[in-house]
Order: sequence, then structure tokens, then C-alpha cells
Amino acid sequence: MASDETKILLRESEMPQRWYNINPDLPAPLAPPIHPATGKPLGPDDLAPLFPMALIQQEMSMEPWVEIPDPVRDIYRLWRPSPMFRAHRLEKALGTPARIYYKSEAFSPPGSHKPNTAVAQAYYNKQEGVTRIATETGAGQWGSALAFGCNVFDLECTVYMVKVSYEQKPYRRVLIQTWGAEVYPSPTDRTNAGRTILAQDPDSPGSLGIAISEAVEDAATHDDTKYSLGSVLNHVLLHQTIVGLEAKEQLKLAGEDGPDVIVGCVGGGSNFAGLCFPFVKDKLDGKDIDIIAVEPESCPTLTRGEYRYDFGDTAKLTPLLKMYTLGHTFIPEPIHAGGLRYHGDAPQLCLLVSQKLIEARAVHQLGTFEAAIQFAKAEGHIPAPETAHAIRGAIDEALKCKETGEEKCILIGYSGHGHFDMAAYDRYLAGELRDYEYPKEKIEEALKDLPVIEEG
Amino acid sequence: MASDETKILLRESEMPQRWYNINPDLPAPLAPPIHPATGKPLGPDDLAPLFPMALIQQEMSMEPWVEIPDPVRDIYRLWRPSPMFRAHRLEKALGTPARIYYKSEAFSPPGSHKPNTAVAQAYYNKQEGVTRIATETGAGQWGSALAFGCNVFDLECTVYMVKVSYEQKPYRRVLIQTWGAEVYPSPTDRTNAGRTILAQDPDSPGSLGIAISEAVEDAATHDDTKYSLGSVLNHVLLHQTIVGLEAKEQLKLAGEDGPDVIVGCVGGGSNFAGLCFPFVKDKLDGKDIDIIAVEPESCPTLTRGEYRYDFGDTAKLTPLLKMYTLGHTFIPEPIHAGGLRYHGDAPQLCLLVSQKLIEARAVHQLGTFEAAIQFAKAEGHIPAPETAHAIRGAIDEALKCKETGEEKCILIGYSGHGHFDMAAYDRYLAGELRDYEYPKEKIEEALKDLPVIEEG
Repeated sequence: MASDETKILLRESEMPQRWYNINPDLPAPLAPPIHPATGKPLGPDDLAPLFPMALIQQEMSMEPWVEIPDPVRDIYRLWRPSPMFRAHRLEKALGTPARIYYKSEAFSPPGSHKPNTAVAQAYYNKQEGVTRIATETGAGQWGSALAFGCNVFDLECTVYMVKVSYEQKPYRRVLIQTWGAEVYPSPTDRTNAGRTILAQDPDSPGSLGIAISEAVEDAATHDDTKYSLGSVLNHVLLHQTIVGLEAKEQLKLAGEDGPDVIVGCVGGGSNFAGLCFPFVKDKLDGKDIDIIAVEPESCPTLTRGEYRYDFGDTAKLTPLLKMYTLGHTFIPEPIHAGGLRYHGDAPQLCLLVSQKLIEARAVHQLGTFEAAIQFAKAEGHIPAPETAHAIRGAIDEALKCKETGEEKCILIGYSGHGHFDMAAYDRYLAGELRDYEYPKEKIEEALKDLPVIEEG
Repeated sequence: MASDETKILLRESEMPQRWYNINPDLPAPLAPPIHPATGKPLGPDDLAPLFPMALIQQEMSMEPWVEIPDPVRDIYRLWRPSPMFRAHRLEKALGTPARIYYKSEAFSPPGSHKPNTAVAQAYYNKQEGVTRIATETGAGQWGSALAFGCNVFDLECTVYMVKVSYEQKPYRRVLIQTWGAEVYPSPTDRTNAGRTILAQDPDSPGSLGIAISEAVEDAATHDDTKYSLGSVLNHVLLHQTIVGLEAKEQLKLAGEDGPDVIVGCVGGGSNFAGLCFPFVKDKLDGKDIDIIAVEPESCPTLTRGEYRYDFGDTAKLTPLLKMYTLGHTFIPEPIHAGGLRYHGDAPQLCLLVSQKLIEARAVHQLGTFEAAIQFAKAEGHIPAPETAHAIRGAIDEALKCKETGEEKCILIGYSGHGHFDMAAYDRYLAGELRDYEYPKEKIEEALKDLPVIEEG
């Protein structure tokens, strides 16, 4: 019997004490990351200059459960357990017999799921005597989350922010500074990578690839400094599983047997994986769950990419990861869901897509804003453009239920709020946004540059 | 025994079913509003062109409790009961023996306490067959809340937004539009009031006074349209008492006997009244509670104003209210806490200040941002510049406890988030903000224009 409450809340005492590690449950072994110079599988020592040992161990761990340290849980309490909402009014607006729930990460201080891992990463770095973390950020979602995480554990934080975003989207830059981190418009003259670019083009607008190079160089050349990544890697996805573990308890509280459908948006894959991995386990155990990853038509990694080894970044600095990829040189059109403009995806997630345990779906930008506004009018809250992709997918599923009469339980991953994205809403409402076709030729071109790696 | 939880949450079933009306408990009779043309006390009929009868009755009601209609409570469930937080980390950062709690209205869809009354007002208008509500807004806090309220009850909403804010602070304007309301930069050519101003000055930047005139004229000249106000009036304060009623239950849950100190910020007075009125009752019954209203030094209505009849607006269109006032022609310096730049204050609140049941205190702008950043670093969440005034006051109280060793329970009214105010944080961090001295001469000048009303 489903509950009639709007908000399904857990007490702090009910917050999960462990993260769920999907590695031992994966239906096939995960292809190892490959060293970009040697072409050989990476060992822990290769990663040691960049990451603290605890995170390297989590990256490779085969333990199914990982204890969440008390100091991390103490910080999580500032907003966790996060609320789950029953979208009564959206159901009514759609006229669907489906029951729609959304698990909201929008109430964290930075307004998204990102601090779930930022806080954990800052903690482990602090534990190992690191005094500063360097990272890159595009529009600032990750940079602001890491600034928050470093602040609470008294670590310095240096954020290389893509210059064009630094100048045009100042609000998350201010968030970063409010939490006490230093943030530089990249390319900077602080690194060789940055100076080289500036020598060629003093007015370079920057790119995520350049910013990664700067942050990695900063970490690699300073003993007290490590590097941090906000998505893609196994340990990042691990930290995000608290979202799905809570959601599971909340659905029980709401009187649900479990979700029939889970819908989330995918950029690097961490928010989606965090929500669905604990349910993937149930699916592997025989439960009938449709798990749907929604991505932009203009950056259709999972739906149109090739499943093979590629670099994580444009600059070919990162290890090679086996994943669905559009090619590391692929540059997507400037859609507003900046967090979904990534050429690859998390290897764990890609493996599950390749095994057909997760279904991928691509949607157009205008349809996501239409869904976001329908949601905002029904439920009040304003989703981020990334989150709007999940909502588009969920509304489509709910409308299918309207046709078939099926009373499905649909769970949405509501990854963040849109308060810093109102300029995108403005452009949508003014009719200034457009859709972009599946960029077939650009992808074919980019895939030509892929390295060939012998597997196994 | 105080609890160690960070968040103190009520279930939806524990949401108050009634608002608390302070009118019958006031220690002296409230001076009646006076008709601006006749100089006589206003009757219900005078207000009928502007407000639905249910709200006019609430304005004058002497019933101590007013039922919250079920459809209003259903909408409240989208974010209510709102969370109360124990500010453990702020206490530690300050080294205070005080226990600090903050009751947060930041998680409502518009991000403040405003929808508590916007939703109720929209409901009563809908009940009486009104099809459209007109209102004014400065930076957009109230306009966005009313747009949200009208949207959920399928009412049209017309917002006259001060032109300079419309152009310079577009984000809340976009919120208004996202929830489906129409918003015009005021002065407009839609009203006589607007056209008159535009004839004199086609480039007029607008003012709240002009926008009020436009909204009132719009409502008065259209049968299907009423007007709505977001603060000051008794019925608005009534609707906000749900905040204090919830806070009372939450403090009990946290194991507190009640607050020793309540601190909130005051602009028109509705968020502060909503939090403290249910506790004023306890104080009248003998409890020892310090209730502190914090206002800006540059707009020191309660601390430096005169307690007498004045107009609610610059244009002298509104009824005369007995309140602390700096004079309706007083224009405060451009501090960032736009919601606190009001020359008067709610009559119910002013009466309690005049009776010394509430203490008023004025603070400087830089000190409020310093407090806001200290709060954001400790608790994560970013307060609105208005809310930062409450935090400044609470930190000062907590530091006094550090000196005296008193283990007081301090309750903060956290009226809203600062996500749409990051430009103000940017200016503060860049050292571009300044303080403004108490504007003695400007106030003396403005007070010369006050009408003389015979009382009783």
C-alpha cells in the first residue's frame, strides 16, 4: 500500500553506515585502467602521486561494503538523509496511474549530489596528511562541491575553472570563494600547461581539458597537494551509492515493494550510478526493474558511442578507461546541461549498459526544458538542466503507463536544483534555445583518433 | 536534555492545522488603519475592491486560532514542515556554550518564507471567484512567491517589477515566468499611474512606490482582479505563524524547554513575526525569552523611527497604519538586503516593540556578510543577505554567552537562501561593499512629511 505523504524522510539514525561497492557484483570483470605511457594496466603506485591511498584502494576494492567514516557522516548530516518526494501533483497533471517519486540531492549546500564524494575525498586526503587539493571545474558544480568539502576538513583547495565559465557564469565561482577556496580562470600562468597555451593564445577561453592538465600538474608537482575528480572513477561512484541506499529505505517507508522504473541523467555517470547501483544488485537477484540512463541527443555517449578504451580527457593525460566513448576529441554543442557534455562515461556504468542491465536513451534539449517547466509548475521545485533530462525520461515513462494503464512505481534521480541556471530557463522561455541533431559525422571523425588497446 | 541530531524534522501529520492569531493576545489594542481620504478608521467595505473577504476578515479577526484550509496544507507539504537545524558546527566555530538552532524557510520552491502567505492568499482569492491577482515586487522575492501560489491554484498573476531590478536582477524575474505569471518592468504603459510617470520620464528606473500604484490600480479597475501584499498586514503575519508553531514543536523534539533567545531579521516584519508570535504568547504568560528584531543600520525603522501613523507607500495610496516609521519619503541606501529596505513595519510587531516585549537592534552591512560567511563555512548553507542580519544578531548573542558562560538556547529565523544573491557575496568578497551610517538627517527630513492623525 503506497503512502500518501509528499515527503518521505529518514532520520539521521537511519542514514546508511556503509557505501555499496558494485565491483564484486558486476556480471563481468571490469577492464583495468591502462597507463597512457606504457600501455599496461595501472597499479596503485601509478596513481599515488595524484590520489591518497585510501581512495586508490577503494578504486580497486572487491569488498561489497565500505564503512563510511564517522566524520564524513557527521558532515553528511548537514543535509542527509536527503528527502524523497512523492510527485502527487505531477502524477495528477499527467493523468498517469504511475506513482512517481523523486530522490532529491538539491538540498545539499552546493545544491547537487557532488558533495557526497567531495566530502569523502577531502576526508581521506586530510587523513593522509595532504594539505591542499587541486581540481578543475567547468561551470562550477564540481568546483563548488570540492570547495565545500575541503572547507569542512580545513584543507586548502585550488580550483582551475574554465575561463569562459569563470567570466560568464560567476555565481558558482562566488560559491567556491565563499567556502574559502582559491579559483583561477584557466589557462593560468601557474602551470607549464597553462603557460604553453597562453603563449600560443593569450585570449584562450580555456577548456575542461586544459583545466584538467593544470590541476593534475599542480598536484603532481607539489608534495603536499593531491588531485581530485568529481565523476567517472569507481571510488566516486561508490561514495554516491548513499543516494540509492537511502532511496531503497524510503521506498519501503512509502509502502513500495521497490521501483519498477529508475530514471536518471548521465554525464560522467556518478549521480546515476549512485542512485541505481543498489537496485542493480536487486535486478541481478531477479527483480524486474527498468533502469534508464538519459543523456543528451547532442552528446549521445551511451546510445551512439563505441565501447572501447579511450582517454578520459582531451589532453590525453589521464589513464585509458574502457567505456562508451564518442572520442576524446569530440566537442559537443553548447547545450545548457553542461554536466552532461562528456565524451565518455564511468566504466562500471558502461559495463552494465553493455550487458543490457541498464538501458540508455537520448533526448533533445527543448524536450528537457519543457519537462522541467511542467515539473516546476506541478511540484514547485526548479530542476537543474541536467536533472531535467531525468524528468523528461520519467514523464515519458509515466505517459506510457497512462496508455497501458500500468500502475508502475517510477523513481527519478533528482540530481540538483536549477537556481544557478535561471539564465538557461530565460533563454528557453524566450524561444532562444534549439535542438541539435545527433552529430554523426563529428563522432565518426573523433572515433578515428582512438588508441587501439589489446584487451586481456 | 538537548538532542544531538543536526536536523529536527516533523512529519507531515505533525504540521500545524491552525495559524495563530496574536490579535486577541496583544497587550494593548491595535490602532485601526485609517482611510487616506477620509481620515476615518477603515471598514471591511473599504478594502473589498482590493482583497477577498476571507482575508479582510482575517485582518480584523479576534479569534485566537484560524483553521488552515486543507488545499493550502496540501501545497505546504511540498516543503513543510520545514526543517530546523541544530548549528553544531557554528557553535564549535564560535566556541560558545550556547545551543544554536535555525528554522529554515530556504527549502520552499521560491527559497524563502514568502510562499506561506502567497499560497494562502491565492487560495482565498480562488475561493471567491477571483481569476487574477496583481502585485508589485522589488528584487522579486515576493513576486516569485505569489507567482508560485497563483500557479498552484490556477490563477493568473500579474507582477509589476521595479524596472531597475527587472533589468539588473533577472533571475527571480525568470522564476516568476517559469511558474507562468506575467511580469512587467514598472513603470508600464498598462496603468494611468505608469503612463503618468513615463510621460515625465520615459527612462524612469521605477520604484516600489510606483509599482504598488500600478498593481493597486490594475486590481481596482478590473472586476476579476484583486491585489496582494507580501508583508506588513495582519493576515500576512497570521499565515507566517506556521513557522513559529512548527519551531515550537521542533524545539520540544530536540529536548529544549524553549528558546531563551529568538533572533530574526525585519523588513516588513512578516518572517520575524511568523517565527516569534507563538513565543510572544509564552512570554506574556511569564516565560523569560529575549526576542530580538535585527534591522539594517541604514534603514533603522524600529530603532530610530517614530511610532505614529504613516502611509505604507511612497505614493500615499495605502491606508495609514500606526507603526514605527522613518517617513514614507525616506529612501534608504542601496544595501543588498533589499527585503529590509522598508520605511515602516508591521503594526502588530510595532505594538510589541513599543511595549518592550520585542527588542530591536540595528547592524551594519559588512558585519552581516561577515556573519553570513562564517555561517556558510560552518553550516554549509548560504543565507540571503536579509537572513544574514538574523545570523549577525545570533552570533553576537552566542559570543555574549561565551563571555558569561551561559548555556542559552538561541533560535534563528533563517528566512531564505542566498542563491540569487551571489552577486552581493561577490562584491563583499571583492571588498566593494561599504557600511552606511545611521542616516539621521534624511530621517528627520522624511518625518517632517508625516500626516497628523488624531488617535482614539
